[in-house]
Amino acid sequence: MSQILRYGMVGGGIDSLIGDVHRKAAAFEGKAKIVAGCFSRHYDKTMSLGKKIGINPKRLYKNYHEMVLKEKDREDKIDFVSIVTPNSTHFEIAKDFLDKNFHVICDKPFTVKSKEALLLNDLALKKNLLNCVTYTYSGYPMVKQAKEIIRSGEIGKIRMVMAEYLQEWLAMPVEKKGNKQAGWRLDPVYSGDANCIADIGSHIENTVSYITGLKIESLCANLDHFVEGRVLDDNAEVLVKYVGGAKGIYWCTQVAIGYNNQLKIRILGEKGSLSWEQENPNLLKLGIYGKPVQILSRGRDFMFPMALKVSHLPGGHPEGFLEAFANIYNNFSDTLIVEKNKKEEQRERIVDFPTFHDGLKGVEFVQHCVISSKKGAKWIKIH
Amino acid sequence: MSQILRYGMVGGGIDSLIGDVHRKAAAFEGKAKIVAGCFSRHYDKTMSLGKKIGINPKRLYKNYHEMVLKEKDREDKIDFVSIVTPNSTHFEIAKDFLDKNFHVICDKPFTVKSKEALLLNDLALKKNLLNCVTYTYSGYPMVKQAKEIIRSGEIGKIRMVMAEYLQEWLAMPVEKKGNKQAGWRLDPVYSGDANCIADIGSHIENTVSYITGLKIESLCANLDHFVEGRVLDDNAEVLVKYVGGAKGIYWCTQVAIGYNNQLKIRILGEKGSLSWEQENPNLLKLGIYGKPVQILSRGRDFMFPMALKVSHLPGGHPEGFLEAFANIYNNFSDTLIVEKNKKEEQRERIVDFPTFHDGLKGVEFVQHCVISSKKGAKWIKIH
Amino acid sequence: MSQILRYGMVGGGIDSLIGDVHRKAAAFEGKAKIVAGCFSRHYDKTMSLGKKIGINPKRLYKNYHEMVLKEKDREDKIDFVSIVTPNSTHFEIAKDFLDKNFHVICDKPFTVKSKEALLLNDLALKKNLLNCVTYTYSGYPMVKQAKEIIRSGEIGKIRMVMAEYLQEWLAMPVEKKGNKQAGWRLDPVYSGDANCIADIGSHIENTVSYITGLKIESLCANLDHFVEGRVLDDNAEVLVKYVGGAKGIYWCTQVAIGYNNQLKIRILGEKGSLSWEQENPNLLKLGIYGKPVQILSRGRDFMFPMALKVSHLPGGHPEGFLEAFANIYNNFSDTLIVEKNKKEEQRERIVDFPTFHDGLKGVEFVQHCVISSKKGAKWIKIH
Amino acid sequence: MSQILRYGMVGGGIDSLIGDVHRKAAAFEGKAKIVAGCFSRHYDKTMSLGKKIGINPKRLYKNYHEMVLKEKDREDKIDFVSIVTPNSTHFEIAKDFLDKNFHVICDKPFTVKSKEALLLNDLALKKNLLNCVTYTYSGYPMVKQAKEIIRSGEIGKIRMVMAEYLQEWLAMPVEKKGNKQAGWRLDPVYSGDANCIADIGSHIENTVSYITGLKIESLCANLDHFVEGRVLDDNAEVLVKYVGGAKGIYWCTQVAIGYNNQLKIRILGEKGSLSWEQENPNLLKLGIYGKPVQILSRGRDFMFPMALKVSHLPGGHPEGFLEAFANIYNNFSDTLIVEKNKKEEQRERIVDFPTFHDGLKGVEFVQHCVISSKKGAKWIKIH
Repeated sequence: MSQILRYGMVGGGIDSLIGDVHRKAAAFEGKAKIVAGCFSRHYDKTMSLGKKIGINPKRLYKNYHEMVLKEKDREDKIDFVSIVTPNSTHFEIAKDFLDKNFHVICDKPFTVKSKEALLLNDLALKKNLLNCVTYTYSGYPMVKQAKEIIRSGEIGKIRMVMAEYLQEWLAMPVEKKGNKQAGWRLDPVYSGDANCIADIGSHIENTVSYITGLKIESLCANLDHFVEGRVLDDNAEVLVKYVGGAKGIYWCTQVAIGYNNQLKIRILGEKGSLSWEQENPNLLKLGIYGKPVQILSRGRDFMFPMALKVSHLPGGHPEGFLEAFANIYNNFSDTLIVEKNKKEEQRERIVDFPTFHDGLKGVEFVQHCVISSKKGAKWIKIH
Repeated sequence: MSQILRYGMVGGGIDSLIGDVHRKAAAFEGKAKIVAGCFSRHYDKTMSLGKKIGINPKRLYKNYHEMVLKEKDREDKIDFVSIVTPNSTHFEIAKDFLDKNFHVICDKPFTVKSKEALLLNDLALKKNLLNCVTYTYSGYPMVKQAKEIIRSGEIGKIRMVMAEYLQEWLAMPVEKKGNKQAGWRLDPVYSGDANCIADIGSHIENTVSYITGLKIESLCANLDHFVEGRVLDDNAEVLVKYVGGAKGIYWCTQVAIGYNNQLKIRILGEKGSLSWEQENPNLLKLGIYGKPVQILSRGRDFMFPMALKVSHLPGGHPEGFLEAFANIYNNFSDTLIVEKNKKEEQRERIVDFPTFHDGLKGVEFVQHCVISSKKGAKWIKIH
Repeated sequence: MSQILRYGMVGGGIDSLIGDVHRKAAAFEGKAKIVAGCFSRHYDKTMSLGKKIGINPKRLYKNYHEMVLKEKDREDKIDFVSIVTPNSTHFEIAKDFLDKNFHVICDKPFTVKSKEALLLNDLALKKNLLNCVTYTYSGYPMVKQAKEIIRSGEIGKIRMVMAEYLQEWLAMPVEKKGNKQAGWRLDPVYSGDANCIADIGSHIENTVSYITGLKIESLCANLDHFVEGRVLDDNAEVLVKYVGGAKGIYWCTQVAIGYNNQLKIRILGEKGSLSWEQENPNLLKLGIYGKPVQILSRGRDFMFPMALKVSHLPGGHPEGFLEAFANIYNNFSDTLIVEKNKKEEQRERIVDFPTFHDGLKGVEFVQHCVISSKKGAKWIKIH
Repeated sequence: MSQILRYGMVGGGIDSLIGDVHRKAAAFEGKAKIVAGCFSRHYDKTMSLGKKIGINPKRLYKNYHEMVLKEKDREDKIDFVSIVTPNSTHFEIAKDFLDKNFHVICDKPFTVKSKEALLLNDLALKKNLLNCVTYTYSGYPMVKQAKEIIRSGEIGKIRMVMAEYLQEWLAMPVEKKGNKQAGWRLDPVYSGDANCIADIGSHIENTVSYITGLKIESLCANLDHFVEGRVLDDNAEVLVKYVGGAKGIYWCTQVAIGYNNQLKIRILGEKGSLSWEQENPNLLKLGIYGKPVQILSRGRDFMFPMALKVSHLPGGHPEGFLEAFANIYNNFSDTLIVEKNKKEEQRERIVDFPTFHDGLKGVEFVQHCVISSKKGAKWIKIH
């Protein structure tokens, strides 16, 4: 029996960069094949993209609800759906697919409101459906390596986390000059209360949480809107206290001229430290007390099994953003294939991909930051 | 009419890393679909891989000659073949496919002997067939950017080229300890007269030639075999004089402990300089006389159209080795699609991918280096 | 008339690293010669160092007060004194020398309490005496270059400052294992309320203030003591709001395993950004909107006069910490030499070295951080 | 008895950058004091500099020969002389001082002709006088560390050396536009047969020789003059075979736009590798087979005694070019102080500074390169 999964996509039309990324990621290891889609509110656009990528026109749908209804009755129905629409629509679409028992992958940020995220998470749990929110950065091999180094105890108990995410693209008022993405991201109608802290701050929260396992106890956030006329934030500073005594600094900004997409995470432990940078993702800096700093290189140096599983090329052959994204789809697909084949009594589910629960945590984090900032950057208790 | 090309593959079986790379590269943009294969001398292995990746079993062949004969008579025959076998077999396989009018992509190094390369190149030209040798590094956007910067005259006439390629994997006698690839690469029966200079020295020659357009006038090469017991080289130093007065230093080594796959190319011109490193491929260092050094970043800074065409993600979202490989397949596919659709009188063929002619130059370069070294690193006249 | 200044030193005995640094810095340009000293509470130690470095034994004193009294009556009395004793003694010594009209250089942090700093600053102003607190990092040419770039408006109005200072030396409880410096720095008796934020946090405050000219309006600080048994901080996170709307993050830590002395300052403006790192101090990264990032190199690229004055060697000949320290002494000496020679009506005093006023600001900053932290990292209003 | 040495200087006048560097280097540790000088052919210039730096006017001389004659008869005569004149005059001056039994420090390159270098070396040996040629780069702590790591066997027998030295300052015909130093360096009357290979190629030869202890068996050199109208080289490529089987590539250039003073040395051994860069001199990259690459940091990580002796500041407090220069003077001074104090039977002389013998090797290396290049980059046998 073929192990190639079938999936459908909602959103991610012909002009969508991230739609193309999702499709490449799904296809990367040949484990999932797109067979259905509703890529746009405009049916002709869905048809034209669908044709181009070879989808049976009968499975190109006018709206997502039609897709749910028609797919659920097919013999060869999709195994899962990927939702790549603007954030504010994730909730209703995901709910509809879950209701009809489809596994779901959803782009991030998960939802605008945390109660929506909570509801989706509960629903997926209750129905025992696989669920994923595509936080890319947990897909990098060296991020997994960092996680495992910490779990191994090599750097000891964590004391400090410094995580930063610097972009430049909103340094000028581009939303007033026709940049569409800037337009909706900075518009509260589509984005709710937050822009920068939601768009990239949530990546910080997720990646730190993934690597360290730390839970935020309280935080103090300051959201700025440096470019005149903005209602939503384009920069944020957050101080964090974790359960157990560690501390953290999160900084995300979209007004950092000269920086592209610099997510950088440094972790200080009682016995050592780690540093990883997204723009040079195949390396991981490891400092152990009393030893020279070591530069771990993906594919050359020792890798834990979880990191090795998603490392494809030999050392020095750079793997990048798309490979990290593909690793999320790949791990999701592997889990789903096992599920489909497994008998009742079988082994535990392996989930090394970000889930709705992670999505929920992200939405909550953003809301806490917004509240803290509105109160004048006051400390907010969380756990 | 569908624009998705059909292709077959010879070699690249289930244990072959590079076979997987070729297939991912071909599939990357969704422009070519594998529909036929002869992946191994062992038919069961071909069958098992073929099944796994969804190929019609009728198009899984026992040997490449059967594939040529059967495919040529099919209505839906393959548009091109990818040859991913050990070097010494490239010649006969490529010739067979060319004879029956198939377009051909061949892994590098192209052939063992230059007269074989010459013959294949002539044959492809005579038959007007598309031909490609997969020198990966010319597929990187910033390599194309470097080429175009030079062509624009921004750094002036070239004076010096320093190109180095450092690997570690043959620093110890791993060929005696069961490393299969080391085994055949260091065995003259399979590899002819050269190992390191052929395997990675040819990449230097190709990438420098691609970027600069310089022709080698004469060279002086010294091939070393540092690890005891080796007949073929594991390190080489080459001095180069180019037509027109520029000079070059090429250094390739497979005994560089601590280095993975560090191809680095520096070019000094009369008005400026360029530096590019394969292990951090999204950046390009540009020095212009009288100005601070500039760090060009793929996706952020100005890119020439040829480089922009193969740059997919925004700045700071790393693209790596596989994307570079895919760009070669993609440019090849684009050219082939245009060919298939074009009418007699139509536009010139655009060839921005490495061809058999480049493969031939590579084989000649290696042979000249071998001869020079055998004569005691004497200068050899070429052009 | 000879322009070589004479100076004396209090503290900085034979085991003191920083004493040696001060003496080398003073001697570097040959503008100041040490002629008197009270290096230790133990007279024999003062004698032995004094002899070694060629000081007239009559000018080696048993205590600082004797030095003040005897020097003030000499024809060839010292032009200024350098105070290199533990912080808690700075106040009384500096006051004694100021009272008798000596110009004073004092190591940092200036004093333990802000009212002492205020008093000294007022006294020096009233008596029109030159005064300096040796905040090293403002002495680096590229720090001055950064200051002048900002002043020129090239990066526009400042939005964000991120300044960090990472050291490793207190990551383990070395104060319990005989590390003397750790001992007194972590002992409230000698260090008052603060360790890390005073020792290196004050450098952040000074360097940022020097480069940007920004005034802190309010701050929120969290002081940690990660190593068990410590009363004083070994790590601190500070959020800052500046007058005028800019924001800042300061992070200083002495538990960062794998880091030596990494002071790094990033500044984001409306038109561009700057980044400087103390461990690679001859470079300055400049990002201007719409242009590739530029790497300014001391001695190669354009330097403003203030930076050029303290840049000695051609580009690529690294200048380091000691040269930065020497630049402070050199600028102080130049100003003093002009003072000594100037007539009543003459030109304004040029002060490009850190003063008591800067020292005072540093002490106040530390106190505000301590208060904020004690209140649970609450926001504290300053200006 | 005072241990402060007295020295005199020939050359290094008020406009000479390197004269100032020598004086700062000598004064750095307070072990040598300048007391005599003949800084210029113009006596008034000597007088004015001498006065400025506080030298007794009686010991400011009209020419070097007068200095030799008068100093030799003084009770308090100089302990050594520093010769900082243009290369072509080193021979006669050094000989004069040696003849009268003065120890000598001489700037590099040592002499124009190797037979002069040989004669001086023999003379110094015969008279048992300390002699030094100031090859700066052997003074860096991490260069000494590299030497000791190799001596310890940690990276095994050396296979390959790649050493490069890139400068930009002669990329344009500045010698025609009033650049004085370019003028004489590129003029055969003052510089003999070689410019770039002598000025900076000799640094490569010395630093590699110092670190590795390798002897050159044969070489093949190509000297270029890329800028029109030049008679002497501004770029050179050299292939090297060492006694014992190791190979080397040396590349020096003064036409590398965008590069300041980038001396970089990489050494590949049978068990590991080392890499050091002059522009970031406090780090040393160490690759050991089977381990992650390590970044050794001066002052933080383990240092061999020879390296530790010349490392002054804690880790992360950068030491630069001047400190390296000072280390040469310091080691020379230490040896001389021991000599002065030692009794007949006493311990061996410790010589960790570059000597006339090193200077001689440098001059010979340059001559061999010139000869090889003139013969069309033929291989020249040396040892």
